[in-house]
Amino acid sequence: MEEKTLKSERIYEGRLVNLRQDAVVLSSGRETVREVVEHPNCVAIVAIDSEDNVVMVRQFRKPVEGVLLEIPAGVIELGEEPQQCALRELEEETGYMAGKMERIGGFYSSPGYSTEFLHLFLATDLQRGSTRPDEDEIIEVVSIPWEQILGLIVAGEVCDAKSIVGLFTVAFSCEEVKK
Amino acid sequence: MEEKTLKSERIYEGRLVNLRQDAVVLSSGRETVREVVEHPNCVAIVAIDSEDNVVMVRQFRKPVEGVLLEIPAGVIELGEEPQQCALRELEEETGYMAGKMERIGGFYSSPGYSTEFLHLFLATDLQRGSTRPDEDEIIEVVSIPWEQILGLIVAGEVCDAKSIVGLFTVAFSCEEVKK
Repeated sequence: MEEKTLKSERIYEGRLVNLRQDAVVLSSGRETVREVVEHPNCVAIVAIDSEDNVVMVRQFRKPVEGVLLEIPAGVIELGEEPQQCALRELEEETGYMAGKMERIGGFYSSPGYSTEFLHLFLATDLQRGSTRPDEDEIIEVVSIPWEQILGLIVAGEVCDAKSIVGLFTVAFSCEEVKK
Repeated sequence: MEEKTLKSERIYEGRLVNLRQDAVVLSSGRETVREVVEHPNCVAIVAIDSEDNVVMVRQFRKPVEGVLLEIPAGVIELGEEPQQCALRELEEETGYMAGKMERIGGFYSSPGYSTEFLHLFLATDLQRGSTRPDEDEIIEVVSIPWEQILGLIVAGEVCDAKSIVGLFTVAFSCEEVKK
């Protein structure tokens, strides 16, 4: 099934994403072109405090022209381990330091056109620190009781893939951990 | 929290994706640049046959250089309703016609950099037709017993966001429907 690359043309190199066009040959012998968005790998964190609240963030997302309610997440920096990144991003975005940061999964966000892979973490044993958002991030931190979370997903109030995957994963696999 | 666009520059117009750079001003007054991948909206379909198997597809995904096991999905064409698209894509990719195609959710795949929104459907009452994959798609259809699905997600065998969201959504909200 593999698609062999005949030629790769770099279209754009940007701040967060690159774009390239790969001319490929399919296993059928047919040739076609694949557009590939190169995006760095990321972490996403389901953070649950001692009172069973999920720590989430609200921020404006330009591509969708709206404010979304999401779990904290961010790009893994050069040389950084996913777990380090998860600890850093959680603290920067929400002000919480996690005593325990456990990897509970990983997934591609849009494998049809993007290279992005997200490592999913469960953060517990939270201590309050101070937020240090990136200069171009304006983030509101919101704590939501765990028992309301699935209702928010069903109602479409939580409507981005990484948050839904993260929260469902915790609901399914880690019910005992979050207690 | 809104980010007002000062200037929008189109970088690339492609077959599947476009790319633009938006110069924006944050509510803080600070100016920055957002890279936006424009991707058409899509459907993704959890299709369950009368024997409680989930109909999935395996295909090579160039951006991640590997074969992934996913739920059927595809791009909504111009003038097409999401439900029409779900019926069409399911039949084209898997050969199954669905007697019932119910919308069970919707989500953004990567709202930090992509406009893509996916409508999620549950397909039941399946009748076998014939596949008609796109000329540049090589797809293998796989039927997987429902009771193995959550194990495949936990094991990382199903590792793309739309498939995980779709399957978890059915597991949670529609347990009764799939029976």
